[in-house]
Amino acid sequence: MIIGIIGSGQLGYMMINTMRRYPFEFYVIDDNKGPSAYIADKFFYNKDYKNFVDSCDYVTYEFEHVSGEILKYADEQNKLRPSLKAVNLKKNRILEKRFLKENNFPVADFEYTESFKDAFKIAQSMGRGVIKSCLGGYDGKNQYFIDPSSKYKEEKDMPYVVEKFIDYDYESSIIAARDKNGNFEYFEPSYNYNQNGILIYNIAPINNNIEMIEICKRLMNKLDYTGVMGIEYYIKGDKTIINEYAPRVHNTGHHTLTGSSVSQFEEHILAVSGLTLIKPVMFVPSGILNIIGTGIGNKTEEILNAGNTNIYWYHKNEVRRKRKMGHINVFGDTYNDVKNRIDLLIKILYDGDVSSYI
Amino acid sequence: MIIGIIGSGQLGYMMINTMRRYPFEFYVIDDNKGPSAYIADKFFYNKDYKNFVDSCDYVTYEFEHVSGEILKYADEQNKLRPSLKAVNLKKNRILEKRFLKENNFPVADFEYTESFKDAFKIAQSMGRGVIKSCLGGYDGKNQYFIDPSSKYKEEKDMPYVVEKFIDYDYESSIIAARDKNGNFEYFEPSYNYNQNGILIYNIAPINNNIEMIEICKRLMNKLDYTGVMGIEYYIKGDKTIINEYAPRVHNTGHHTLTGSSVSQFEEHILAVSGLTLIKPVMFVPSGILNIIGTGIGNKTEEILNAGNTNIYWYHKNEVRRKRKMGHINVFGDTYNDVKNRIDLLIKILYDGDVSSYI
Repeated sequence: MIIGIIGSGQLGYMMINTMRRYPFEFYVIDDNKGPSAYIADKFFYNKDYKNFVDSCDYVTYEFEHVSGEILKYADEQNKLRPSLKAVNLKKNRILEKRFLKENNFPVADFEYTESFKDAFKIAQSMGRGVIKSCLGGYDGKNQYFIDPSSKYKEEKDMPYVVEKFIDYDYESSIIAARDKNGNFEYFEPSYNYNQNGILIYNIAPINNNIEMIEICKRLMNKLDYTGVMGIEYYIKGDKTIINEYAPRVHNTGHHTLTGSSVSQFEEHILAVSGLTLIKPVMFVPSGILNIIGTGIGNKTEEILNAGNTNIYWYHKNEVRRKRKMGHINVFGDTYNDVKNRIDLLIKILYDGDVSSYI
Repeated sequence: MIIGIIGSGQLGYMMINTMRRYPFEFYVIDDNKGPSAYIADKFFYNKDYKNFVDSCDYVTYEFEHVSGEILKYADEQNKLRPSLKAVNLKKNRILEKRFLKENNFPVADFEYTESFKDAFKIAQSMGRGVIKSCLGGYDGKNQYFIDPSSKYKEEKDMPYVVEKFIDYDYESSIIAARDKNGNFEYFEPSYNYNQNGILIYNIAPINNNIEMIEICKRLMNKLDYTGVMGIEYYIKGDKTIINEYAPRVHNTGHHTLTGSSVSQFEEHILAVSGLTLIKPVMFVPSGILNIIGTGIGNKTEEILNAGNTNIYWYHKNEVRRKRKMGHINVFGDTYNDVKNRIDLLIKILYDGDVSSYI
């Protein structure tokens, strides 16, 4: 069986590495050669997309901001999983918000505008608000946090969503899988720690929140979804609010690579290829620390000596600030044990302060 | 860092797949292209061995019966791990036996001969004996079980070891790792079930047998060993007797791919590359069933639905009787739970009887 992956970044890289042990081949397409281009059985440039899609049995994507032309053609050939609808909603933040709201999923109040000036006013009228560009934003790019005391600073006009700021207790996410027959499996929700809109570390499991699971299941059913999905939630008291969903494997699911009976990458490719899902069993509390804007070269020993660690390096062409270069899996006896180990790793990797790397 | 692997079979394949997530590259050399040739960063044919060794920082091997010329050259360049001595002892069964005996390791009584007729006589004089060719035998190839009632049947003259047959209770093995500084880590010993000299399944952990661990540690120290080693033991009552050692990752260590914090493949490459070992934590009882002489095509769903399984397919060019095509990892709540799941998988894969496949 030949699985096509649109996008050649680290998520596709981990899909291939994890699933090479199945009788599958992996073809990759992108406009530039990212890490997975070098381990794919075959690499195609975007212009050759028809040939790519025609060669594959199934086509999936590792990222939502990939060529719409390829997605559309793969969909026309009935090979695209997750569906075109699931990814198109994510290509424009306002479409996602409206879809969620119309279908009674819990989201923050929001408004749409194409003027930054208006966006600023709306945000201030909300008390505190967040302006997010509708197109292409991820990892905190093109996001502005506004409160009544914020001074206006001109930014480009473009489609924006302005969301009422939620003063949440914490962010949590769930990674779940749904197969072509509607079977559903989920991984234990995690606590996520972000800085500047970028995930720094996360740990699972946190206290079970049935609502997170139910919302996820309902959303996947609503989209007749096939594959793995990640949903980020804001948790405030007993309220569970969707921040956003990702129609793909997700950074907050990398902890499933250690201490789980199956990883999100395996589950995704099983679903995409029409196979049956594996029921995930989590053996121990497990988390990750992202490696952002730095190499690990001479720290490899220290990272391993910290204990209960596994290193994942993404083989990107160069280290850049804010760039996710890899991650470290960490497990422990308890949630707090994992947290303490991550704190130690933050000292080793970032001298205790990640802020100059992100 | 560039790691060279001599041999392009499944063991090297799993080394590369497991360790791609480190900032390493993997070069492979062989006289024919086996599975790992297609996923290596670079493949060399044996004739180009000097170039291969010169390009690599460290050189290891996935199998003992590889070109002595390459091993020797890699050793001369101080790049070979485990050492030339460890592998050369394994190139000839009589050297291994004598080394073990001279160093007071527990082995079965044995004699050496180059005549099959003599071997037969010696075996009968032992009551029950096993004739094994000294060169190139593995997976039960060129082995003859002889008892007083056996009829003589001519076989080729060649160097043979004749061992006194041990009517052992069961076979067990240990997988352990030693780094360049002499640090030692081991995985929990397993129970191994063989048929016709081929491993069918194994399960770990079994009751802890301190002697197995101590013997292993002493042997690795004696050889000043760097890397992972597997030792197969015969267990009879309170006696622990070495059957043989393998200076490499081993089929009975594949269970470490599921339910352990680190696999034998990761541990081996960490040791070979001069990094620190990871202390293995075994999360759950875990075992494997080998896929021998058959594909899995339409049984993939059933294997996954059996529960607690992960599939490893080796991507060999064709299915042949006796050939290890892949394996299935299985975990469970208890040893017996794993055993029951393996029994179910034997039904699925072999219709309950492996004998016509091996």
